[in-house]
Amino acid sequence: MPITEPDALSPTLQLAFDLLRRPSVTPDDEGCQDVLIERLEALGFHIERLPFGDVDNFWAMRGHHGPVLAFAGHTDVVPSGPSTHWEFPPFEPCIDDHGMLCGRGASDMKGSLAAMITAVEHFVEQYPDHDGRIAFLITSDEEGPAIDGTRAVVEHLRETHERLDYCIVGEPSSTRELGDMIKNGRRGSLGGVLHIKGVQGHVAYPHLARNPIHQALPALGTLANEHWDHGNEFFPATSFQVSNIRAGSGATNVIPGDVEVIFNFRFSTEVTHEQLQARTTAILDAHGLEYSLDWTLNGEPFLTAEGALVDAAIQGVEAVTGRRPTLSTSGGTSDGRFIATLGAQVVELGPLNDTIHKVNERIRAADLDDLSRIYSATLEALFVKAESHSKGIA
Amino acid sequence: MPITEPDALSPTLQLAFDLLRRPSVTPDDEGCQDVLIERLEALGFHIERLPFGDVDNFWAMRGHHGPVLAFAGHTDVVPSGPSTHWEFPPFEPCIDDHGMLCGRGASDMKGSLAAMITAVEHFVEQYPDHDGRIAFLITSDEEGPAIDGTRAVVEHLRETHERLDYCIVGEPSSTRELGDMIKNGRRGSLGGVLHIKGVQGHVAYPHLARNPIHQALPALGTLANEHWDHGNEFFPATSFQVSNIRAGSGATNVIPGDVEVIFNFRFSTEVTHEQLQARTTAILDAHGLEYSLDWTLNGEPFLTAEGALVDAAIQGVEAVTGRRPTLSTSGGTSDGRFIATLGAQVVELGPLNDTIHKVNERIRAADLDDLSRIYSATLEALFVKAESHSKGIA
Ligand SMILES: [Zn+2]
Ligand SMILES: [Zn+2]
Repeated sequence: MPITEPDALSPTLQLAFDLLRRPSVTPDDEGCQDVLIERLEALGFHIERLPFGDVDNFWAMRGHHGPVLAFAGHTDVVPSGPSTHWEFPPFEPCIDDHGMLCGRGASDMKGSLAAMITAVEHFVEQYPDHDGRIAFLITSDEEGPAIDGTRAVVEHLRETHERLDYCIVGEPSSTRELGDMIKNGRRGSLGGVLHIKGVQGHVAYPHLARNPIHQALPALGTLANEHWDHGNEFFPATSFQVSNIRAGSGATNVIPGDVEVIFNFRFSTEVTHEQLQARTTAILDAHGLEYSLDWTLNGEPFLTAEGALVDAAIQGVEAVTGRRPTLSTSGGTSDGRFIATLGAQVVELGPLNDTIHKVNERIRAADLDDLSRIYSATLEALFVKAESHSKGIA
Repeated sequence: MPITEPDALSPTLQLAFDLLRRPSVTPDDEGCQDVLIERLEALGFHIERLPFGDVDNFWAMRGHHGPVLAFAGHTDVVPSGPSTHWEFPPFEPCIDDHGMLCGRGASDMKGSLAAMITAVEHFVEQYPDHDGRIAFLITSDEEGPAIDGTRAVVEHLRETHERLDYCIVGEPSSTRELGDMIKNGRRGSLGGVLHIKGVQGHVAYPHLARNPIHQALPALGTLANEHWDHGNEFFPATSFQVSNIRAGSGATNVIPGDVEVIFNFRFSTEVTHEQLQARTTAILDAHGLEYSLDWTLNGEPFLTAEGALVDAAIQGVEAVTGRRPTLSTSGGTSDGRFIATLGAQVVELGPLNDTIHKVNERIRAADLDDLSRIYSATLEALFVKAESHSKGIA
């Protein structure tokens, strides 16, 4: 029998149920942030609501001195698709017979939000006089355009000279077991939309036309074969991928007038996006193409190679799971790219990511209680003097 | 004031009006063939109606001995598009204030059909005892799929061992002045639809994917740069053109699973379509691609390099216009490709082609009367003994 009423469950799972019941599809928050704010105000946090456009965000701070650790996350979720494709309704959370917490957002990332709140509640109760300050940076458009969310909040923090030393992003970073991987950086992402112009014509009169597909081939081949860098200790080599190419109306006897090519760089810290842009246009120019090219910088690469936060997060995971996590910069982009621009150390640490954005999103319910303990232990490693550690965590 | 009633016009223009009034959009004939058949029966032609599918066709023959010259043409027209885009309604023929015969099909090719009929009427009246035989091969799907029209009639003629020595196709071959160009052949057309398979994935994990666009680039580059032949006296070099390329769903972070490439060969008589197919697959195989490839042979090349028909057509044009026509194999395909397979000499000779398939299709009305004279003069050059020539044409 699936558990659908959380009354007998841990505080973390009770809070997760409360959040998962709210169908907060991007950019709707559906009151999730009110639930978090109520809990944080009870702990003495000062709340600054920061709505931008139709996106709800808030910044919360507890304490007045010392380094700032922020927990960062999002209350929005990706759409569920048809409920009928789900084993359980996507916005009616339950724990199934295998002990899995089911529902849209269980992994990405309402589970993490619940664990952050109870971790901080527990930590503050244990160490009311801890060093440093604790903050929350919460948005509701991480899954959407990501313009009026973390990016805008970060710009606000920059303008108000808010201090930010450490940030734990609650994105699901674990791959096989809770805490087996911590993301300590991400590659940059640079997108390009290229239009190569030719001269339209009939295939029977090629001398009156200029086929832009034929013209594009050698230049695209050069781009696809270019070694942009060799990567480094933390990043694989920068990669160039064409994601879309499109030319022609379907008519088989017409040479099209232009070809559209959409491509993406995932780039290491060994090159800058300006260098990639300059090298790309140099290749296109060397091939004598007539073209237009629009760039979108989705994110600069960021890296927290080492430091107090990485050490604390590793200690936190080891204290709870007994296993040492791997550091990795793999995968797509995350809101960490915006936060890192404030000069903060940033890691991503959260539950298993195998079901995110899929039907039947789920995580082990017990993992959420452990994740709360990991966050507490990380706070302890960062903000509690060694002699206090004897009081330990539960 | 446009002329909308043809009563005072020449027999050729009267017949053209009658045909142009019938909205015979492919494959509908709308009684056009009945009109032609009535005129031909009055001249003693034997008519064989040859409907295939929903396409009307007929084969008509006059005479019992000697070489056969067939006039070939089609009663169907391409759609007019919205009538409101036309200066005059597309199926209400008129002669405008500049002496232009206006209407859908005026150039392609009801004007030619009218000129063929009156040319034969005139010729038979002048030379009732001419050598040879005269035939008509008329279809109503030249502008459509071209399966149940000339192609099917030609197969019927092949099965019944019908003799065909010469064929004048009435397609509009003239470019600036009536009769300035005679098409004495056409290149072949061979189409391919190529699917190159890769492995779909996320641009952030290129090592887990195999980008089919990247894989396709060098192979397509080789195909685009290949010298397939050098052409010959009558044909330009064989040309390869990609008309369409398509990969990706629009998502900018997904490496697509396959790419579709549609290409076309226009080929000379220096290569066969089998050779082109073999060389194409050899190039794709040499690049180690996983692919599927579907071929469509739209038409083999044909050529009437020289002979009695070309000589007669040139004489016919010179007799009427005083100018010597150019021979050319340029342009797209025509039903001549099917007829040539019977071993006949084939030329295309018709009015100016600058407005075909466009709104406000039109030709000089006076050109139609001249075209009728050209067809008569060609018949005379071919089928009348030299000593009879003194009777001449009007
Ligand atoms: Zn997320
Ligand atoms: Zn035509």
